Amino acid sequence: MHISKFVAPEIIFGKHSIQQAGEACLRLGAKKVLIVSDYGVAKAGWLEKVISICQESHLPVATFIEVTENPKDHDVVSGCRVYIENECDAIIGLGGGSALDTAKAIAILAVNGGEISDYEGVDKIEKPLPPLIMIATTAGSGSEVSQFSVIVDSERQKKMTIISKSLVPDIAIVDPITLVTKDSFLTATTGMDVLSHSVEAFVSMAATPLTDVQAKNALSLVCKYLRPSVASKANEEAKEGMAMASLQAGLAFSNAILGAVHAISHAIGGKLLISHGEINAVLLPYIMDFNFIAVPDRYMKIAEYMGIDTRGLNERQAGNEAIQFVRDLASDIGVPLGLSELGFTEDMIDTMSTLALQDACMITNPRDISLDQMKKLLRSTL
Amino acid sequence: MHISKFVAPEIIFGKHSIQQAGEACLRLGAKKVLIVSDYGVAKAGWLEKVISICQESHLPVATFIEVTENPKDHDVVSGCRVYIENECDAIIGLGGGSALDTAKAIAILAVNGGEISDYEGVDKIEKPLPPLIMIATTAGSGSEVSQFSVIVDSERQKKMTIISKSLVPDIAIVDPITLVTKDSFLTATTGMDVLSHSVEAFVSMAATPLTDVQAKNALSLVCKYLRPSVASKANEEAKEGMAMASLQAGLAFSNAILGAVHAISHAIGGKLLISHGEINAVLLPYIMDFNFIAVPDRYMKIAEYMGIDTRGLNERQAGNEAIQFVRDLASDIGVPLGLSELGFTEDMIDTMSTLALQDACMITNPRDISLDQMKKLLRSTL
Repeated sequence: MHISKFVAPEIIFGKHSIQQAGEACLRLGAKKVLIVSDYGVAKAGWLEKVISICQESHLPVATFIEVTENPKDHDVVSGCRVYIENECDAIIGLGGGSALDTAKAIAILAVNGGEISDYEGVDKIEKPLPPLIMIATTAGSGSEVSQFSVIVDSERQKKMTIISKSLVPDIAIVDPITLVTKDSFLTATTGMDVLSHSVEAFVSMAATPLTDVQAKNALSLVCKYLRPSVASKANEEAKEGMAMASLQAGLAFSNAILGAVHAISHAIGGKLLISHGEINAVLLPYIMDFNFIAVPDRYMKIAEYMGIDTRGLNERQAGNEAIQFVRDLASDIGVPLGLSELGFTEDMIDTMSTLALQDACMITNPRDISLDQMKKLLRSTL
Repeated sequence: MHISKFVAPEIIFGKHSIQQAGEACLRLGAKKVLIVSDYGVAKAGWLEKVISICQESHLPVATFIEVTENPKDHDVVSGCRVYIENECDAIIGLGGGSALDTAKAIAILAVNGGEISDYEGVDKIEKPLPPLIMIATTAGSGSEVSQFSVIVDSERQKKMTIISKSLVPDIAIVDPITLVTKDSFLTATTGMDVLSHSVEAFVSMAATPLTDVQAKNALSLVCKYLRPSVASKANEEAKEGMAMASLQAGLAFSNAILGAVHAISHAIGGKLLISHGEINAVLLPYIMDFNFIAVPDRYMKIAEYMGIDTRGLNERQAGNEAIQFVRDLASDIGVPLGLSELGFTEDMIDTMSTLALQDACMITNPRDISLDQMKKLLRSTL
C-alpha cells in the first residue's frame, strides 16, 4: 500500500438540511455572502429559499446566477466582479456541478487574482480561499465535497481541470429534497455521472482503502436507486439514495481521482458544450471494457457491488456482466448509447484524442492508452 | 433518516507517512511546534524520530512528554505552560489516546484559558485552536480523527469527556510502522478498544450512513487482523489492517458518538486509572447482550461483518454468535473477562452506576438504562 491521503469537508446531509445554510455561513465568520447559482435552480425556487434562510440569520447576500452549463472562464470573471463590488467575504454555491465549480473558481480569482487559466492543473492556488459553503442540488457532480473545479477555456474550447485541496469546501450541505424538482432526463444524466465517478475512482491507480469504501457504497446505491429516481420525482427514498451515492462517489473520486472517461469527457465537453453526464454515460462501458485487463480482480468486486450474482463466474465473465449492467441501465433510463447522437463526428477524433491524453485525469487511468488506441476507442463509441 | 453531520481531518495514511510530519506543520503555518508525547513512545524511539523530521524541515520544537495513562488535568496545565513559555504556535500529538487527548486539551487551554473542566461536555470551546497534527502510534483511540478529548478530573476522580468540532485535528498521520514497537498486551487492549468503537458507533442512536460504512469496515478489519497483530510484532500486514481499523472506527464514533461501554468505562477509568481498552474489553459482550433488543437487525449485520456465516440464523441467534465472537477473541488474545480482575469491587457499584449514567456517551446508547439495570449490569461483569 502506498501513502493514502484523504480530505473531506464538514458534511451536513439529510432532508431539509438546506435550512442550516445561514447558520453554516455565520459559523465560518461570514458577514456578506455571494450566492452563485443558475437560472434553472432559481426557477425551481431554491435560490429564493436560500436567500430567505440567510435573511433569517441576518446575513446580507448578493447573487450571481448567470452560470451556464459547462461554465466558462468569462462566467467566473463576471461572478468575481459581483463578489468584489458587493464586498462579500464568503461564497455559497447552489446547484449542480456547473454552479459549484463556478463558485469555487470565483473564490480563486477573488483572492488570488490573475486569470482562471493560471490555476489549471494540480496545486496552483497560493492564498487561502474565503469560506465556501456548497449546496448540491443534482446528485451528480460531487463538487460539494471534491477538490476539483472544471471550467471551460472559451478561447481554446477546452475544459480546464483545477485540482487543489483549497477547493475542498468548508461545509457541504446535501438535502435530498432539492432533487424532487429535477426533470427525469437531468436525473438520468447526472446519475450516470455518479456511476462513472464510482467506477473510475474504484479502478483508479490512486485508489486507497479510504476511497474504496466510499466508491463501493456509492456504486451499490446508484445501481439500486437510479432507475426509481428517474421514474418518479416524488420517490423520496430514491432521492435520498442518489444524494448519498453522489456524495460518497464525490469523496471517492476527489481523493482517488478519475480516469479515461473523464479525460475524454473533458476534451469533448469543452468543444461541444453538451451535458457532461451524457458523454460519460456513453463512454463508460467502452472504457470499462478497455481497462479490464489492468485490474480484473476489481471488476469481480464491481459486479458484486452492483448486485450481480457472481457465483461461478470468472473475472472476465463478471466484468462482462458489469459492463452489460451499465448498458442496460443507460438504456432503461434513456440516455444515449453512442457519441454520434450527441453531435460528435468522425473528423473530431484526432483532435479530441490528443486533448484527452493531455487531461490530468489520464494519469490515474489503470491502463495506458496510446494515441492510436485512443482514436480507435473514440471511433468505437460513435 | 435524520440529518447526518460528518467531520474528518485531512488524513495521511501509510507506511513511513510519519516522514511527512514536518512538512504537515509547515503547511499549516507553524513556526514553532510543541510535541506532546509520553515516556513509552519516547523510549521506543518515535519522539527522537519526529524531532529529527521537524529539524529537517527547519522547524524548531519544544517537547512535553510527561503525559500519563488516563491523562490528568494537571498534565494539561503543565503541558500548556511549556507551550506558552516556548512561544509555540502549533501542536503535534504523538502516541496513543493519552498523548493525543492531552495535546488537544493543551490546545484548548493555550488559547481559551481557564481550567480544562470548563470545557467538559459538548461545544464549550469558543476560540479556534492552534494547528493540531496528530500522529497515532497505538491503533486504538481514534483520537487522531475524533472530536473527543477525555481528561481525568483528579479531584473528582472522574473522566471528563470534551466533545467539539474544534478538537478534530487539522492533519492525522497514521503510520502502521509505528505499531511494531508495541508489546502484545498493549496491542490486545487497544485493539479491543477499536472493536468497542466499531460496535458502539454502529448501534448508536446517532449512527448515519456515513458512519455506518466506516464502522462496518473497521469491524471487519479488527476481526480479521487483531489476533495476528497480537501474535507478532513483525506482521506488517496485520499492523496495517489494525491501523486502518482504528482510523475508520475513529471516523465512525467521532461522528456517531458511543454508548454504555464507554460511559461505564469513563466512570471506572477515572477512579481506578486502569487501561481503558481492558475495561472496554470486559464490558463489551455484556452491553452487547443488554442492547440487543433495541436494534436486533443491526446485530445480524454485525455478525456478518465479523465474518460469521449467518445463513439460517435469526437475529437473536446471530446476535448471540456475535457476542460469543467477542468473548472468544478476548480470551484468545489474553484480555481479562471480568471487572474484578481489574480491581473493581462490589462496593463501587452504586457510585459507578450513577456516574456512568451521567456520561455524555449514554445519550446515544440504543437502549435506555435505569439505575437499577445499571447496577445489575455492573454486578454481572465482576
